[in-house]
Amino acid sequence: MSREILETFPNPKPERDYTIEHTTDEFTSVCPKTGQPDFATIVLTYIPDELCVELKSLKLYYFSFRDKGIFYEAVVNQILDDFVAVCSPRWAEVRGMFNIRGGIASEVSAEYVKP
Amino acid sequence: MSREILETFPNPKPERDYTIEHTTDEFTSVCPKTGQPDFATIVLTYIPDELCVELKSLKLYYFSFRDKGIFYEAVVNQILDDFVAVCSPRWAEVRGMFNIRGGIASEVSAEYVKP
Amino acid sequence: MSREILETFPNPKPERDYTIEHTTDEFTSVCPKTGQPDFATIVLTYIPDELCVELKSLKLYYFSFRDKGIFYEAVVNQILDDFVAVCSPRWAEVRGMFNIRGGIASEVSAEYVKP
Amino acid sequence: MSREILETFPNPKPERDYTIEHTTDEFTSVCPKTGQPDFATIVLTYIPDELCVELKSLKLYYFSFRDKGIFYEAVVNQILDDFVAVCSPRWAEVRGMFNIRGGIASEVSAEYVKP
Amino acid sequence: MSREILETFPNPKPERDYTIEHTTDEFTSVCPKTGQPDFATIVLTYIPDELCVELKSLKLYYFSFRDKGIFYEAVVNQILDDFVAVCSPRWAEVRGMFNIRGGIASEVSAEYVKP
Amino acid sequence: MSREILETFPNPKPERDYTIEHTTDEFTSVCPKTGQPDFATIVLTYIPDELCVELKSLKLYYFSFRDKGIFYEAVVNQILDDFVAVCSPRWAEVRGMFNIRGGIASEVSAEYVKP
Amino acid sequence: MSREILETFPNPKPERDYTIEHTTDEFTSVCPKTGQPDFATIVLTYIPDELCVELKSLKLYYFSFRDKGIFYEAVVNQILDDFVAVCSPRWAEVRGMFNIRGGIASEVSAEYVKP
Amino acid sequence: MSREILETFPNPKPERDYTIEHTTDEFTSVCPKTGQPDFATIVLTYIPDELCVELKSLKLYYFSFRDKGIFYEAVVNQILDDFVAVCSPRWAEVRGMFNIRGGIASEVSAEYVKP
Amino acid sequence: MSREILETFPNPKPERDYTIEHTTDEFTSVCPKTGQPDFATIVLTYIPDELCVELKSLKLYYFSFRDKGIFYEAVVNQILDDFVAVCSPRWAEVRGMFNIRGGIASEVSAEYVKP
Amino acid sequence: MSREILETFPNPKPERDYTIEHTTDEFTSVCPKTGQPDFATIVLTYIPDELCVELKSLKLYYFSFRDKGIFYEAVVNQILDDFVAVCSPRWAEVRGMFNIRGGIASEVSAEYVKP
Repeated sequence: MSREILETFPNPKPERDYTIEHTTDEFTSVCPKTGQPDFATIVLTYIPDELCVELKSLKLYYFSFRDKGIFYEAVVNQILDDFVAVCSPRWAEVRGMFNIRGGIASEVSAEYVKP
Repeated sequence: MSREILETFPNPKPERDYTIEHTTDEFTSVCPKTGQPDFATIVLTYIPDELCVELKSLKLYYFSFRDKGIFYEAVVNQILDDFVAVCSPRWAEVRGMFNIRGGIASEVSAEYVKP
Repeated sequence: MSREILETFPNPKPERDYTIEHTTDEFTSVCPKTGQPDFATIVLTYIPDELCVELKSLKLYYFSFRDKGIFYEAVVNQILDDFVAVCSPRWAEVRGMFNIRGGIASEVSAEYVKP
Repeated sequence: MSREILETFPNPKPERDYTIEHTTDEFTSVCPKTGQPDFATIVLTYIPDELCVELKSLKLYYFSFRDKGIFYEAVVNQILDDFVAVCSPRWAEVRGMFNIRGGIASEVSAEYVKP
Repeated sequence: MSREILETFPNPKPERDYTIEHTTDEFTSVCPKTGQPDFATIVLTYIPDELCVELKSLKLYYFSFRDKGIFYEAVVNQILDDFVAVCSPRWAEVRGMFNIRGGIASEVSAEYVKP
Repeated sequence: MSREILETFPNPKPERDYTIEHTTDEFTSVCPKTGQPDFATIVLTYIPDELCVELKSLKLYYFSFRDKGIFYEAVVNQILDDFVAVCSPRWAEVRGMFNIRGGIASEVSAEYVKP
Repeated sequence: MSREILETFPNPKPERDYTIEHTTDEFTSVCPKTGQPDFATIVLTYIPDELCVELKSLKLYYFSFRDKGIFYEAVVNQILDDFVAVCSPRWAEVRGMFNIRGGIASEVSAEYVKP
Repeated sequence: MSREILETFPNPKPERDYTIEHTTDEFTSVCPKTGQPDFATIVLTYIPDELCVELKSLKLYYFSFRDKGIFYEAVVNQILDDFVAVCSPRWAEVRGMFNIRGGIASEVSAEYVKP
Repeated sequence: MSREILETFPNPKPERDYTIEHTTDEFTSVCPKTGQPDFATIVLTYIPDELCVELKSLKLYYFSFRDKGIFYEAVVNQILDDFVAVCSPRWAEVRGMFNIRGGIASEVSAEYVKP
Repeated sequence: MSREILETFPNPKPERDYTIEHTTDEFTSVCPKTGQPDFATIVLTYIPDELCVELKSLKLYYFSFRDKGIFYEAVVNQILDDFVAVCSPRWAEVRGMFNIRGGIASEVSAEYVKP
């Protein structure tokens, strides 16, 4: 879950605002309360500035959550914070859709705008 | 149905506006007119301020409607009022999609904005 | 089709703007030209002011169109007019999605805003 | 609902067993108990012998149920009986899928095989 | 959950084998272990002999499970046993599709053939 | 394809802005280049002023394209021009979704606003 | 609609029974009664013997129905007869799913087995 | 992944053959070749003899694969072997639908019949 | 991938702003890192000015990427640049939805507005 | 397209008949007539005997068709022949669902049973 896993490459078209969206339904972490696994679909959308995130490193970054105890709200905010720290995008959004627990499905989403 | 059932935990990222959405298709109450059960999907969406709602307590809160006689419009407004009273969110919305009765499906939705 | 069939009850939360939507796929009337039945899904959405429409009376009101010869455009506008006359909502919309005739499906929708 | 409404035309290929299926989602009759309308999708499938059913007369035949008080089970069996009496098919099946009443959707299906 | 709630009416076409299927997504009972509500879709299919089940009584019969603590496997077998005891069908099947618990959805189905 | 085919009737509610939408998936014309048939779904949406288009004449109007060699872009613009010339609506839009040719599906849409 | 349009090529694997299925949703003919166009999806499935049907010629063959007045039942049986006459398959089936007319959708299917 | 995790309870209706199906989309293991996580939906279906599997223990059993390096084919056969060893069912089937890897989705299914 | 492949024809209705959208799910290029093929759905939407893109040349242009090593972000930006250079539209957008790689699906979209 | 690309590993459970299915929607070859690319979804299903196909080699094998001119019927039969030659399964089936060409979608499927 350490953000050092995330690698970048130079944005091939920095003179244009355009959006990139990466979606995985293979995110899993651990509930800090029960110790049971959580599962989610994570959607990361951003407008790159100087850097784009490298796809394979993003996969490895997501896998780093596999054994970590962390709540839904923290998952989404931490992914956003890590991504912003590493890629410094013009705009970014992270959405996490978490599987049903106790009959309730949950979705958390957070947005970042470059100041 | 008493709002004391709802428990909270501190918002882990209060410096950022972000949204949380909890959806259940396991809501049931009783029609005050006929005494017959009603069934609904309830979607609660909010931007937390200082507090987030604890998921298990939300489940128990919904279950507290199981034997209560209450109309559709009151269900949605009461959930919103209870949630706002307990969590004091920056923004919140409750949508209730009620099963077909007499050939008619009904949806009620209400919104709250912190003054 | 007479609007006297529609019954109301007091809005339980008049201090808040919120929306109510009733959807039926069991609407049928008669084509005034051919005498053949027409079929439609009708969606009624509104923001109540002092009054809400009673669900069973709405069902009976829709059933009152069963033997009436009336064109699509008139169906939707008359439902809106009748509903507004009886419930005096802050806002209302009626959408009618009519089944395929001659290879063409038709949808008519009209909106009312309280002056 | 009288079977005289059904018209036929000669099977253009009686030397071959083949199937014809007509589906309508515009069937409506009246509940004999409550006087309220019922709605159904009706699927008629058959292997013609000497006669095929004429499509427009089938539509009119279905419309003849519009004001008739009749239970689900009787609807399906009567359509099958009427169709068999008029068209004398090698094989036939009628399925009726009736809209939700009291939270329950119902389907009735009956089959005929020429002795 | 008492089978006396189920009412019957004479099969209008006993000389023909045909099938009737009733589906509800409004079944709820209570987990005997946790005391928490369970939710299921129940599909009852049968070939009537002398008797058909009356639809409104079936709804009330399902509602009688609302406060009863009972496991999935027992729900389906008891509905089948009660239905067979009351209606004595030529053939019957009950399927229960239970909502996700602990990340696992469950379906139980049982069949009866008249000896 | 001549616009004289289109017939109108007086708008029954000219004092209100409301929308009418007619959708057909039975539009076919001929590719002027290859002579092969093209197929499309056409959606016509408008806010009537004094006149509404008569449904059967619209069907006949669409059928008048059946043998005409015409490109996608011209189909949509001509339907819009013909419709505006005949019905003089307050607002209108025509969308044509054309079937896959060479692995590519195409959609053309044009809008008219009364000056 | 003449079967001479259909071209063939040698089955590349005649020593094995295998199936080929061609599906088009671009079939249109004319109703002999009303002169109005009919539209259908046609599915042709077969086990080739010595010959396979060439795809482009099949398209042209279907287009040859465009101006022909012919009933649903005749469409399906004629396509099957023409195909069998030209390709002499080990087995073949033609299914035609015709668009809604008078609120009724129709499907006709016929099968051939080499003696 | 040890089969001792699986717990059972007595079949409440051993005199009747009936089926139980448990489906989870939260199965994850590790590819023994790459060390990367695999994800699958697992469907376990069986006819119980004397014993049923307890749902919560099934969940824990699936979670025991989380850190285990194991190929698709071995996953499905081992679940079936473990389940049969513990529950001794009359019949059982395990299906595993594994997420896309290298553009290819894979499904493995194995069946057991009591001798 | 050379933009000379793209051919144009004069916009038949330059006096009106209208949109054209071409969608293909048959785009494939090669990953410059692994040498393995990538697959995408490409949606090109634009408001033509003086020129429209000819459909067959667009197909050939897409096929010119088949053996080219190029990253997702570059694919979308290059298609947009080539299209703008050749057609000089009033507005254009290119969206590329790339198939799952490493459990992650990616979408890139870029927009152009005529200055 | 050479079958030497296919690699195998020993079936981990040869004493049991079970099925394996690999599905890709990333198959592309070239039409020998037009030189234009074809696209298909390929489903390979088999019961292994002594050998299973290695997934990555299957991907590479499919990619070997990328530049090969070959007809639909030959694609499916050759994949089956190559797979049987390399893996010698107890049973195997290959289905190819080819994209729309000239308005017609095509599916070819072939089956092998070990003598």
